[in-house]
Amino acid sequence: MRIELITIGDELLLGFTLDTNAAHLARELAAVGVEITRRTTVGDVGPAIAAAVGEALERAGAVVTTGGLGPTSDDLTRPAIAALFARELRFDANVYERIEERWRARGLPGHPPAANRHQALVPDGAVVLPNAEGTAPGLWLEDERGRWVAMLPGVPREMRAMARDVLLPRLRVLSGAAATVVRSRTLRTTGIAESALVERLGQLAAGVGDLPLAFLPGADGVDLRLTARALPPERADEALEGGVEQLRARVGRYAYGEDGADLAAVVLDACRRRRVRIAVGESCTGGMLGARITAIPGSSAVFLGGVIAYDNAIKEALLEVPRDELEAAGAVSEPVAAAMARGSRARTGAEIGVGITGIAGPDGETPGKPVGTVWTAVAGPAGQIVTRRATFVGDRQEVRYRATQHALDMIRRALPEW
Amino acid sequence: MRIELITIGDELLLGFTLDTNAAHLARELAAVGVEITRRTTVGDVGPAIAAAVGEALERAGAVVTTGGLGPTSDDLTRPAIAALFARELRFDANVYERIEERWRARGLPGHPPAANRHQALVPDGAVVLPNAEGTAPGLWLEDERGRWVAMLPGVPREMRAMARDVLLPRLRVLSGAAATVVRSRTLRTTGIAESALVERLGQLAAGVGDLPLAFLPGADGVDLRLTARALPPERADEALEGGVEQLRARVGRYAYGEDGADLAAVVLDACRRRRVRIAVGESCTGGMLGARITAIPGSSAVFLGGVIAYDNAIKEALLEVPRDELEAAGAVSEPVAAAMARGSRARTGAEIGVGITGIAGPDGETPGKPVGTVWTAVAGPAGQIVTRRATFVGDRQEVRYRATQHALDMIRRALPEW
Repeated sequence: MRIELITIGDELLLGFTLDTNAAHLARELAAVGVEITRRTTVGDVGPAIAAAVGEALERAGAVVTTGGLGPTSDDLTRPAIAALFARELRFDANVYERIEERWRARGLPGHPPAANRHQALVPDGAVVLPNAEGTAPGLWLEDERGRWVAMLPGVPREMRAMARDVLLPRLRVLSGAAATVVRSRTLRTTGIAESALVERLGQLAAGVGDLPLAFLPGADGVDLRLTARALPPERADEALEGGVEQLRARVGRYAYGEDGADLAAVVLDACRRRRVRIAVGESCTGGMLGARITAIPGSSAVFLGGVIAYDNAIKEALLEVPRDELEAAGAVSEPVAAAMARGSRARTGAEIGVGITGIAGPDGETPGKPVGTVWTAVAGPAGQIVTRRATFVGDRQEVRYRATQHALDMIRRALPEW
Repeated sequence: MRIELITIGDELLLGFTLDTNAAHLARELAAVGVEITRRTTVGDVGPAIAAAVGEALERAGAVVTTGGLGPTSDDLTRPAIAALFARELRFDANVYERIEERWRARGLPGHPPAANRHQALVPDGAVVLPNAEGTAPGLWLEDERGRWVAMLPGVPREMRAMARDVLLPRLRVLSGAAATVVRSRTLRTTGIAESALVERLGQLAAGVGDLPLAFLPGADGVDLRLTARALPPERADEALEGGVEQLRARVGRYAYGEDGADLAAVVLDACRRRRVRIAVGESCTGGMLGARITAIPGSSAVFLGGVIAYDNAIKEALLEVPRDELEAAGAVSEPVAAAMARGSRARTGAEIGVGITGIAGPDGETPGKPVGTVWTAVAGPAGQIVTRRATFVGDRQEVRYRATQHALDMIRRALPEW
């Protein structure tokens, strides 16, 4: 099955809003074997909507639209497509009843505003697609030649629920089971450069069998995305499973998870299993490592807290960093990072202490210590200490984020040995 | 001038990559008076590219494309559009020389790979648009009827620079000075609900004169975006200037800045002017407030650091929160927030101390303290203290972020009185 997507709205066309709906729908549709051949965006202009939908129907015979189903005069999708199909709009009492129900369920007084009655206008012969999350129902309109348009709301939460619960099940029935799909899986790596990964992967760098491999470098590290195209669903899943295993074997210790895995969550899990707790001493990251760790629900079982030692006086007062080391080696140095790690452990009673000190930029570089220089130390349960110097690329926020990722990875790598 | 945008790439069509290029170009073009009438995305398929560009030329006569200019076999924009215009591709020695220069400037040995020679293939009669940020040059191709296509690279950094330095200046010349533009300005507010803003704004809630007003609620607060459409550039800027002033007068103390203003930067500036320094004691936010403040370059002049007191023992040990208050009122309480604020001030020597303690969820609610409950305290230079209880909506990350925004706003509001 081949379809086109049309997203409708001035805000999208003018670039005030990023078109996340189109990307979401494209992924979801491809994963069930629907091929998207084109995406179009038009503004809230009736003739433009009708023209775009008409042309897409000529090319593909099947169209999904988002947006323009709301109650205001800007919302022109319904009348434009009804006119294209030469259908009358009729007031649908059932649809209006649902709108009133929602109104009452929200505890609002009286009746919905008159504008909401527009949302109960349904083209002759259209199938109403229920909206579990909002008032605007979706619509499915088909012509005598079997060409169809599915109209979804533009509010992302409503659109996603309707796509999942109503549209995709319909398309699965329509397209049958034999379809081929586009699916992907991602192996997340960190602490290794893209070029070094290419070398480690050897022939696999070009892909695993027929599955092409994409290298996606980012602040978390390099993600390896393997994509199966034009395969039946089970074969795609099988091929991806085997492919990821092959990648994992080559990548080794640099791989920390799959798909959306967060290294902070991976580290928290490992600490929880080993019954060790973490404290931090952060200088250049200013609390970002703590914020990342505490973003994970349940982190309080592992994370105690720590000190944001941005000013040197705080490094001394709250982390017991000796003044002579600060003066001799400078704040961005191995002994200071180590003292911060030890100090955060000592002051909190945590088994693991982390110290991070560096130059996030744009200013602050000194001879031999360019912007991006970060010293990180991790102190372990028996007083062991691991220190590392790194130079991170990117702007201030990127350097800081990379420093938190690096610190988490040092914990991950050290844990099995402690 | 009316144009269409076409973004090219399988990754975009399949939704693996968000189409930020289209949104960026749309805003930039609208701001200089170019009307975008449609946006289209097609995959890396020659005939699909040619069809989309051909149809767009029929409709609008002017097309900007992004993507598909790279050196690999996936990059089909150049040959597809050359074929559409019935032009031969010829090797351009000047273009290749620039590619070699870039290669040498990066300190790479030998010559660029053979694939880079593809990037030096230029359609007959095309104007080469220099790429200051990468190897792929842009191209401008015009037919005998004056219809044109501008081809830009797909890498956002390269595309943005070329749009700013090459495309927009060309379009300004082409379209002349009389064009009307779409421009917008945003007034940022925080600490006030959308419904309360509507009341405060009265008639202005519907817009200022002819300028429609959009309410954009988010974790920072509610942004008010005023948009001028179909006005000459100077009239648009003037109308927006006056409109924002009117909004600002009504919104009063809830407004903290315009457009991309960051409340953390606003607060740092105010503290710098008053020569006061900040320290934090963070529980539920886990370091996020410190991370937000230290995201601003130069924050070290104002921000000393503080304590991430996630565990109650740390609140006692490092912030001197009395154990009996923790036991009597609970960690999420006014006296504990106040003690954290005072403690962070006392332990660091800062003039201003902030204490944040709350329930970020999804678990942890207790009777009378639902998820989202946050107590915040700000202690001032002379030992003054302001405390506030709030209940924030959203998931864990949103509650935490809203808590940092709220704390910053408490500082902003308290400063003039101290």
